[in-house]
Amino acid sequence: MTKAERTREFIIEKTAPVFNMKGYAGTSLTDITEATGLTKGSIYGNFAGKDEVALAAFDHNLKAVQQIIGREMSSRESIKDKLLVYVDVYQNFLKYPFPIGGCPILNTAIEADDTHPVLKKKASDAIIKWKDSIAALIRQGIERKEFHAGHNPEQVALSIVALIEGGIMIAKVTGKVQFKKSIIDAVEHMINTLG
Amino acid sequence: MTKAERTREFIIEKTAPVFNMKGYAGTSLTDITEATGLTKGSIYGNFAGKDEVALAAFDHNLKAVQQIIGREMSSRESIKDKLLVYVDVYQNFLKYPFPIGGCPILNTAIEADDTHPVLKKKASDAIIKWKDSIAALIRQGIERKEFHAGHNPEQVALSIVALIEGGIMIAKVTGKVQFKKSIIDAVEHMINTLG
Repeated sequence: MTKAERTREFIIEKTAPVFNMKGYAGTSLTDITEATGLTKGSIYGNFAGKDEVALAAFDHNLKAVQQIIGREMSSRESIKDKLLVYVDVYQNFLKYPFPIGGCPILNTAIEADDTHPVLKKKASDAIIKWKDSIAALIRQGIERKEFHAGHNPEQVALSIVALIEGGIMIAKVTGKVQFKKSIIDAVEHMINTLG
Repeated sequence: MTKAERTREFIIEKTAPVFNMKGYAGTSLTDITEATGLTKGSIYGNFAGKDEVALAAFDHNLKAVQQIIGREMSSRESIKDKLLVYVDVYQNFLKYPFPIGGCPILNTAIEADDTHPVLKKKASDAIIKWKDSIAALIRQGIERKEFHAGHNPEQVALSIVALIEGGIMIAKVTGKVQFKKSIIDAVEHMINTLG
């Protein structure tokens, strides 16, 4: 890593939680200089502007989630247990090095709506990729005869993503964490009845 | 209705779709004067400020949704058919006089997060009231022996709300309406298997 690459990495690491908490559009250049202790000149020396930092910060937060999920899944044998990783991780953010501020996909999805088309595209791609990975696991489970053949993998995958993201959103607005817990318990039940 | 009441009502009706589309925080006083054709003085003569118009607009949009749901439910006999009203309405916004801009609860919930605590409280109350009405219907269905006794009305109600709101959110971000359709089909299946 060159010095420039290390500085870029440092800026991304320090600002990723700020973007995830305050919103990608809502984070100011001052927030970025405060989080990094660097000058505006130094930020602009490493990034074309705030938007480029925002995009890199989203990628960083998304990668953190994907690494947690991937690592947990690799230590589990059955497809059912692999799918239950989503339940464990989204039920217990704090047990894992989950991005501060919660699910970056949800935070970006609900915010980047029209303000930032490139970021919206990233959130959209992340949701579709997430849905596709769950659907692929369900198909694998059906092939291995671990799950019944009658399930619609696309629909179950979309429902799991909608329940998790809808559950986080409901808990956030109402301030009631038990609502998220109850909804993710329903995801667990859904996964347990696939086979 | 006094003239002042009629003017207030006129302002609310004209601005409700604007707030629902552009966001409650994102709608400017200029948007309000443009939508109504009234002067700033006239708006301030009828409302304390933009925030008060925003709150009244949210109430207006929410009432529109509740009236559609209430009207459809009253024409149906079984609890299952009453619950399926949510499927019909959220699957076919356009068939009903649904607020332009989509679900006002979702639009407000995801936006009013920290910017507007009174509006956030309204969105929170609306979600809890919605969840409570669904849970009450499920309990009634269990009492009438229309549904199996084993269901957890609170959990099923929360799951239905999470699926609908999560489904709309996913469709909005990805631009894929068929995702919402598939998720709401899953809600239909969930309701059909209650009994």
